[in-house]
Amino acid sequence: MASVIDSVVNLCKRRGLVYPCGEIYGGTRSAWDYGPLGVELKENIKKQWWRTFVQGRADMVGLDSSIILPRQVWEASGHVETFTDPLVESLHTHKRYRADHLLEAYEQKHGHPPANGLADVPDPETGQPGAWTEPQMFSGLMKTFLGPVDNEQGLHYMRPETAQGIFINFKNVQTTARMKPPFGIGQVGKAFRNEITPGNFIFRTREFEQMEIEYFVSPSDAPEKFQEWVDACWDWFIDLGINPDNMRQFDVPKEERAHYSAGTIDFEYRFGFAGSEWGELMGVANRTDYDLGSHIKYSGEDLSYFDQVTGERYVPYVIEPSFGLTRAMMAFLCDAYHEDEAPNAKGGVDKRTVLRLDRRLAPVKVAVLPLSKKDTLLPTAEAIAADLRKLWNIDYDIAGAIGRRYRRQDEIGTPFCVTVDFDSLEDRSVTVRERDTMAQERVAIDELPAYLGARLVGC
Amino acid sequence: MASVIDSVVNLCKRRGLVYPCGEIYGGTRSAWDYGPLGVELKENIKKQWWRTFVQGRADMVGLDSSIILPRQVWEASGHVETFTDPLVESLHTHKRYRADHLLEAYEQKHGHPPANGLADVPDPETGQPGAWTEPQMFSGLMKTFLGPVDNEQGLHYMRPETAQGIFINFKNVQTTARMKPPFGIGQVGKAFRNEITPGNFIFRTREFEQMEIEYFVSPSDAPEKFQEWVDACWDWFIDLGINPDNMRQFDVPKEERAHYSAGTIDFEYRFGFAGSEWGELMGVANRTDYDLGSHIKYSGEDLSYFDQVTGERYVPYVIEPSFGLTRAMMAFLCDAYHEDEAPNAKGGVDKRTVLRLDRRLAPVKVAVLPLSKKDTLLPTAEAIAADLRKLWNIDYDIAGAIGRRYRRQDEIGTPFCVTVDFDSLEDRSVTVRERDTMAQERVAIDELPAYLGARLVGC
Repeated sequence: MASVIDSVVNLCKRRGLVYPCGEIYGGTRSAWDYGPLGVELKENIKKQWWRTFVQGRADMVGLDSSIILPRQVWEASGHVETFTDPLVESLHTHKRYRADHLLEAYEQKHGHPPANGLADVPDPETGQPGAWTEPQMFSGLMKTFLGPVDNEQGLHYMRPETAQGIFINFKNVQTTARMKPPFGIGQVGKAFRNEITPGNFIFRTREFEQMEIEYFVSPSDAPEKFQEWVDACWDWFIDLGINPDNMRQFDVPKEERAHYSAGTIDFEYRFGFAGSEWGELMGVANRTDYDLGSHIKYSGEDLSYFDQVTGERYVPYVIEPSFGLTRAMMAFLCDAYHEDEAPNAKGGVDKRTVLRLDRRLAPVKVAVLPLSKKDTLLPTAEAIAADLRKLWNIDYDIAGAIGRRYRRQDEIGTPFCVTVDFDSLEDRSVTVRERDTMAQERVAIDELPAYLGARLVGC
Repeated sequence: MASVIDSVVNLCKRRGLVYPCGEIYGGTRSAWDYGPLGVELKENIKKQWWRTFVQGRADMVGLDSSIILPRQVWEASGHVETFTDPLVESLHTHKRYRADHLLEAYEQKHGHPPANGLADVPDPETGQPGAWTEPQMFSGLMKTFLGPVDNEQGLHYMRPETAQGIFINFKNVQTTARMKPPFGIGQVGKAFRNEITPGNFIFRTREFEQMEIEYFVSPSDAPEKFQEWVDACWDWFIDLGINPDNMRQFDVPKEERAHYSAGTIDFEYRFGFAGSEWGELMGVANRTDYDLGSHIKYSGEDLSYFDQVTGERYVPYVIEPSFGLTRAMMAFLCDAYHEDEAPNAKGGVDKRTVLRLDRRLAPVKVAVLPLSKKDTLLPTAEAIAADLRKLWNIDYDIAGAIGRRYRRQDEIGTPFCVTVDFDSLEDRSVTVRERDTMAQERVAIDELPAYLGARLVGC
């Protein structure tokens, strides 16, 4: 598996799915930019998530809250006090690391934690025996200032999770959308964490995207709904093509859980990073009434719910399925990445790279390929492309041999290639080639939108 | 017109399209959060924009770049030096204002600029004769720090426009997507400006969303392409329902243009703000080779383009259509807002509020309304809602008289209401009511997805 992640990273760079942020200025090392194919893939993941978990459910509604929130929100949530990581510096290289990450990596490699703690962990860059500064706690919150003066009053934090924007709007949403627990609020958006050691491509970045659900339930319903959400999240990944052998659940022990959690199941994906095969993909947590309770205390607002049927008033418990959008994208890419063989023009076979992405996720749905650059074919091919472009994201490629153009579409996961040849001018038909089977079928041009539409349901 | 904006703001708050950010902590006054209906409307605007200008055009591709960019980007772009506003403080109230806004408001009210400058402008709050501090230049850039120490090296800025993320990725996109000028890159995303005086609802906020296109052309093509984009943007608003009487173009004189612009057309919408009827909706600018030229100078990278056909090498000119997403949302809401009359149960008429939003923009496409709460109707109505929910965003409402439920859907612009009555159990049909005409039609339940699908094309 180790090579798949390298192949995917290579493919992403070569085909412009992802670029390092600020590359022409040496890069920020903090984030990645998503190119033409990357933004389509990422948006398709969002769209499927929103359709499944927000629009597709009677008990869910959506929200889009702000990135910059007042300091009090992060005091109430506990982030100002506890959202810190232990920072150490190597005395050899003066580079900074997270102490907990160094210890985890040691344990993964040796099967046991280091007997003498950090002192036993060698410098990751030079291999020299470990020599470390004392760990210092370092806040992961990114600050900024609103208003003309950089003072306490203007100090605001950029959200390290989208969740708090949901909690502080709980009452507004519940009343204006007239929802009754059990109900949930879903949100997709950027979050920011001042990570000490960003790395592993788009896996750990300082600027990233989350897809989060906060599902509000009566305290007694919490265990049952927790399990329902674990199952629903698992099914979502499997339905969109993840191989269940590459995903596993990890019941996080109490001492490793976030301070607010009464139970957490992490989903891990077999990314195959060097030194750490599995990586966290998402988590489902039972946040209890911790968050709403804190905001009641800090804001003085009444965020409880009165159940008119039972006559009970309670502060809802919250079940939180929290997805990393860019981690999900990385998992879909790794899972879809395959190398196999395709027939070539000489009657032999060529190696090919193919992204077997679910059709709903594929960044380009159909490529239109005139067999030759001759002027006679281009008007017909262009008209077909223009027609299909009204319905889906389309590629139109006239450069190079047809086999090479198929390879280019295969490696970005395009489900269908439509080839316009010289017969097309006579029989008003084209050849449609399917990505995975490479089967070809002759289809009338007039029938093309309906033929493809039947095969691109839900795209 | 003055009352329409107030009615829209009132509707947005009452129905939860928009909430003040951080309301339970007194609000930030800097941003707004988008509730269940608001997020659907906003996403529908994005979707139509992306379909029209990115996926729908062979000469366009998409991008999603980072919010936090290195300091050098903003030095090269000129923002560090020139992105400043003149700040003055009233000696009466000690409140801060933008001097240019005070002068503009005076001129709009009196038809001429104040003879003695600021000294003639009274305090906006108290009406007292103006007494102002000397204007101080104040940077609109919001800063944050990456890495463990808040020093020069860690200083980064949050983007005040999405455009620069496109310029610094120009070469990456051009080569990996194999595009040739004229071609453009579109992007939708958040931007941040430390406005001195945020206000007018979602019109001027410190955190906001843009939809921007940077269209790269040879210098000689720039004037023609500029006009093409002005027309394409105009057509987009009109096609989505904006009344042309409420929108106008303003050819910005040289002295008022941004420092990089060789020509700017602003689109203004008749928002009807108190004191200033028209407000800027979007702009199309000819940014020349200013931005790519600056980034070449500051980064040392070659961002020129070599045209293999003509044998010419040039730094592309850039035509920039820049849309404010939340301003567009406000314009669509104001334009759609109508009050008319609807028949009531007593044979008379009631006033009704109706949002005549284009169906593609409407946050809820179909509402399913069982005529009574009686158990016999609910299973059929719920099954219909569940079925339609696979295709569109659906509301299901059983609370109150049917007339009142129609009013609730009318005022949020739901194009179709499906009423399930007692006959439905016999004839397996429902009544479909259209929002604008209020015409009702009996439709077989089995035919419902096709009936609605034909009327919700492109949603």
